[in-house]
Amino acid sequence: MPISKGPQAFPRTEFLRRLAAVKSEMTRREIDAFLISDAHNVTYLTGYTTPSGYVPQGLIVLIDEEEPTFILRQMDAPAAIHQTFMRRENVIAYPEALIGTPNRDGYDTIIDFLHEKGLAGRGIGVELEDLRSQAVAKLRARLPVARILDCSNTVTWIRIVKSDLEVAIMREAAAISDAAMQRAAEVMRPGLREADAVAEIVGTLARGANGKPGTRIAGICLCSSPRTGTSHIRWSEDVFHQGSQINLELGGVRHGYAAGLMRTFSIGEPSERLRRVHDAHIAGMEATLETIRPGVTCSDVANAFYQTYEKHGFKKESRCGYANGIGWLEPTASFQKGDMTQLKPNMTFHLMLGNWFDEDFGYMISESVRVTDSGVEVLTNTPRKIFEL
Amino acid sequence: MPISKGPQAFPRTEFLRRLAAVKSEMTRREIDAFLISDAHNVTYLTGYTTPSGYVPQGLIVLIDEEEPTFILRQMDAPAAIHQTFMRRENVIAYPEALIGTPNRDGYDTIIDFLHEKGLAGRGIGVELEDLRSQAVAKLRARLPVARILDCSNTVTWIRIVKSDLEVAIMREAAAISDAAMQRAAEVMRPGLREADAVAEIVGTLARGANGKPGTRIAGICLCSSPRTGTSHIRWSEDVFHQGSQINLELGGVRHGYAAGLMRTFSIGEPSERLRRVHDAHIAGMEATLETIRPGVTCSDVANAFYQTYEKHGFKKESRCGYANGIGWLEPTASFQKGDMTQLKPNMTFHLMLGNWFDEDFGYMISESVRVTDSGVEVLTNTPRKIFEL
Repeated sequence: MPISKGPQAFPRTEFLRRLAAVKSEMTRREIDAFLISDAHNVTYLTGYTTPSGYVPQGLIVLIDEEEPTFILRQMDAPAAIHQTFMRRENVIAYPEALIGTPNRDGYDTIIDFLHEKGLAGRGIGVELEDLRSQAVAKLRARLPVARILDCSNTVTWIRIVKSDLEVAIMREAAAISDAAMQRAAEVMRPGLREADAVAEIVGTLARGANGKPGTRIAGICLCSSPRTGTSHIRWSEDVFHQGSQINLELGGVRHGYAAGLMRTFSIGEPSERLRRVHDAHIAGMEATLETIRPGVTCSDVANAFYQTYEKHGFKKESRCGYANGIGWLEPTASFQKGDMTQLKPNMTFHLMLGNWFDEDFGYMISESVRVTDSGVEVLTNTPRKIFEL
Repeated sequence: MPISKGPQAFPRTEFLRRLAAVKSEMTRREIDAFLISDAHNVTYLTGYTTPSGYVPQGLIVLIDEEEPTFILRQMDAPAAIHQTFMRRENVIAYPEALIGTPNRDGYDTIIDFLHEKGLAGRGIGVELEDLRSQAVAKLRARLPVARILDCSNTVTWIRIVKSDLEVAIMREAAAISDAAMQRAAEVMRPGLREADAVAEIVGTLARGANGKPGTRIAGICLCSSPRTGTSHIRWSEDVFHQGSQINLELGGVRHGYAAGLMRTFSIGEPSERLRRVHDAHIAGMEATLETIRPGVTCSDVANAFYQTYEKHGFKKESRCGYANGIGWLEPTASFQKGDMTQLKPNMTFHLMLGNWFDEDFGYMISESVRVTDSGVEVLTNTPRKIFEL
């Protein structure tokens, strides 16, 4: 039996709006076909969130066809028919025999499709940065006359301004982040293994909030003393102790969209140093939130933090955040000195103010935020405090 | 304060043994330096499991130095010092200013290091398939005289034969897989949301088994009727119903090593079709397990399954499994017709017999297995049945 269409997170009109923006860029860059391989861009343009991109697959947007065509392995075609907004004819399965065999793979099916559509001599956009060099070599070899144009971040830059529908989904993700952070505060105590805290946190990330389950478990980072100088260790086999500081980064996910959130915990009274760091971060966070509004640059936002923070006697080398949405990080704008991206309404960012001072001491605080018409909306809603446990 | 070395999953001698195998290949291929960018290969050679590879980083093995050098962003250097077996001088941090800025990035630091070591004119191995094309272009531009050699799967092929120490870790991971599958069987019932089952499963994947916690939550795939024809959907917002079939793939993880496991569940009595499919799979599984031993080829193993399965009137297009270990899948040998890789003791595989018949009907069963001196050890230990709930 054919598989039915699943419930869609967005209406068809939303996907067509996104595709229109992509096609407008295609017209500007004079390309007739656009091969999209980045899994998050595929999610954006189709609704597909299944993690099948560890083998070749590609979404092809044609300038003169309303819906894109998704080419992927046979085993995953039913998921694509079920999850995407397109008609089933626009999902093309390539045979399983192309998996794990030398010389031929799914890119051959993609290239065959471009030939069949008469595009072998036309302009073809490709996300060169995302593709493995082997795939690029095959594209060039089998499409020798095509004008292959690097469109690596074309879709990603379109993604940076969210629709109201996307913002609604990100609010749902942020509510899950809050619930998971709250759960962490409830369960963490001396003697508990870090892994047991993680069990409760990921359970909450799956159960979700407000009746909306999480749709993916995004990578969480939990570290406790003496590892708080690390930023991305998942967790260790250690237990919490009286006096432990705990840094936690997590993010709820809805339909691909993640909302990052960081907080710092202390079992027992925080050290004087941790308090001073926290106070400086809160002052910096407030200065940053006051700065965010349409028209200011990402560099302005970063400078608002750095200036306030340095007045408190601290220095942060790393950027103050990055565009966020599908996946987690969107590789476009950063809150960083010199990033002249101008903020626009409905851009969303992970305002990431974590800082790692010494090899054995760091501090985490962050919010997921949205640029509004006149300022900022903080999507996450967890107290901005050191959680004393 | 400097961060201490964390507890290591393997002794130093184990890492040196692995590095000796890599250096032997380097000698054979006449290269003096080997830049390793694949995150799983970095784990294999150092013990580092922190998910920081979304920005440039690279492990450099030099033919005449005992320990490799790991170059990564400043924020992640403490985690590398903590997790890896190398002395701290062999962890080099590049500045945070290289993150999210145009033109310069961490690869510049890696290339600077190769220049400083006097290797700019020598043979340098690179995992070309793993690297983004942008990074390859930079390597070629800034090392124009070097003989850059594609060593894409060199380390991965070394990984395929595990040491006894690695097998012990994979048994721990497999025990977690069993515990999570058991937990799924306990909690799944009509009316429960798929997401709530996932919450229990991922909680178990974190808590682990036999006092050994999971060290990462590997992506799980759970689908129930009418989605059992999909292979990799994570889960949906649906609830289980009386009569639902549920397909579940999961894998416990210890220190990077994953042990995949698939089973099929039925709420209420399984359909006649499902029973027939199951019986064919069990017969095929047994034939496959009887075939696995040193000296036979991966193709022989696949054929043992296909022949038995076809006698039962079914056909499977997809391969019957793949080498597994760090990460999940190792992109080397597959149980597939024509794969002439000869089995050796301590090779490990995810014997993946899942099959997707119709868009709305599929079946999952798999085991993580090890080739022994004379046959096979099944690392996972979950009843090979349709779980009736």
